[in-house]
Amino acid sequence: MELWFSEKHTPNVKFSIQVDRQLYCGQSEFQRIDIFDSKEFGRFLTLDGYMMLTEKDEFIYHEMMVHIPMAVHPTAKKVLIIGGGDGGAIRELVRYPLVEHIDLVEIDELVVEVCKKHLPQTACCFNDERVTVHYQDGLKFIRRCENEYDLIIVDSTDPFGPGEGLFTKEFYGNCYKALKEDGIMVNQHESAFYLDDAVAMQRAHKRIVESFPISRVYQAHIPTYPSGHWLFGFASKKYHPIEDLKAVKWNAMGFKTRYYNTQLHVGAFALPNYVEELLKDVE
Amino acid sequence: MELWFSEKHTPNVKFSIQVDRQLYCGQSEFQRIDIFDSKEFGRFLTLDGYMMLTEKDEFIYHEMMVHIPMAVHPTAKKVLIIGGGDGGAIRELVRYPLVEHIDLVEIDELVVEVCKKHLPQTACCFNDERVTVHYQDGLKFIRRCENEYDLIIVDSTDPFGPGEGLFTKEFYGNCYKALKEDGIMVNQHESAFYLDDAVAMQRAHKRIVESFPISRVYQAHIPTYPSGHWLFGFASKKYHPIEDLKAVKWNAMGFKTRYYNTQLHVGAFALPNYVEELLKDVE
Repeated sequence: MELWFSEKHTPNVKFSIQVDRQLYCGQSEFQRIDIFDSKEFGRFLTLDGYMMLTEKDEFIYHEMMVHIPMAVHPTAKKVLIIGGGDGGAIRELVRYPLVEHIDLVEIDELVVEVCKKHLPQTACCFNDERVTVHYQDGLKFIRRCENEYDLIIVDSTDPFGPGEGLFTKEFYGNCYKALKEDGIMVNQHESAFYLDDAVAMQRAHKRIVESFPISRVYQAHIPTYPSGHWLFGFASKKYHPIEDLKAVKWNAMGFKTRYYNTQLHVGAFALPNYVEELLKDVE
Repeated sequence: MELWFSEKHTPNVKFSIQVDRQLYCGQSEFQRIDIFDSKEFGRFLTLDGYMMLTEKDEFIYHEMMVHIPMAVHPTAKKVLIIGGGDGGAIRELVRYPLVEHIDLVEIDELVVEVCKKHLPQTACCFNDERVTVHYQDGLKFIRRCENEYDLIIVDSTDPFGPGEGLFTKEFYGNCYKALKEDGIMVNQHESAFYLDDAVAMQRAHKRIVESFPISRVYQAHIPTYPSGHWLFGFASKKYHPIEDLKAVKWNAMGFKTRYYNTQLHVGAFALPNYVEELLKDVE
């Protein structure tokens, strides 16, 4: 028997993974949730049929979402994660002894439950005493926060469906307000290669540039995401992502990472010309 | 009607492109050659069913194969391309007025003919008076060369089939001998993500390290190649790929590029830890 999971990256491009078996299938108030097991990627999570993470390459996404801002602001104490119900961002964050409190705001409780059961590789640290999980809409949660967080990680799904509001100007403005005067926001930013993704990326970048004085985009190679060339936003009130990189300090912490290192940190902000041009078009 | 081209990146991973129509199908002495037209990627070339290039993303591969070494050695005059029958490397090279002579050694004459007819975007510069095409086995051609070239570009297919010999220690040793004392060799190096590709990449790297005093690996995002994370080798007798980068000089030439720039040049050599570890294992 052959069982294949396929995702259309565009109407004309399809990425398929051979599946050993489906471990879970459920429908929450917000979305359809599936977990599959596969030879090539280990277990993987899809929401409404879209790839969220695989055990084989999720380290790239989560390391790049967490260690990039933490190496710029290694004394961050209070962190807000919007989305991130798989627990991957939490896993990387709790490695920092100076982090005192992590609020995770996930709209879909069932995602967290399913990940705890089926994806122990990422959902391993929800029990850390510094973590508080709020099952709420991130858009509403952030409205009441002011001058509270050192770091906000917007670990959203795509800019349609339940995650749509997390790509709006109102949301980014509220993130700005919720951050302390030296706070940083990072967000997943889609890709610049396929047209529809590039348009979404430009829209998000435009709104972030309007909200934050410092706004730069960085990249990573994530094989299971459309085009494999994934972008992230780094937005900040004060710190520059490269000039303020605390490389010596970060390296002294002695973390073992599989993707991130402080040289790659600098390299990740050196974007191809075609991406730079898309960004400049909306700056 | 739906017509899909699929390539298995591993036995368990498949990448598929919807095709408008097949423009060419032929069999040479060496391999099967196909050209397809598609909405998403424009025209694309496959050899024995493996993706070689698409009109949409070939600029990434060719710019990274040519401008990386040329920005380190901008006075290179005599260049050898092994493989590269699609003409993409030639197109980027002939932009340099100081380049005086380009030998292209392609084993399969039919590839050049088919590309000239169906891929004018890459096969546009075979008529440049500095270009000489040799329809020979690169492995044999290189044996008789000594102290002749400033730059050798190994634009090979995969390390099986007709391109197999271009990944051997004998071949890299002959490239060393064929280069002048400040010569550079670049080669396509597969990927580090899927196991079989990673093993091929390690094997090639080990052989290059044994032949050249300076040997570094750099990366690019190429969406239609397995994992999208593609590696290249930079091997040299004298020049370091970053310390000897002539950024001011290269930028003064005023080339318009879509992927390459001199900041990205430096960033491309900052590899993820898991790739660095694979390389160190064989150094």
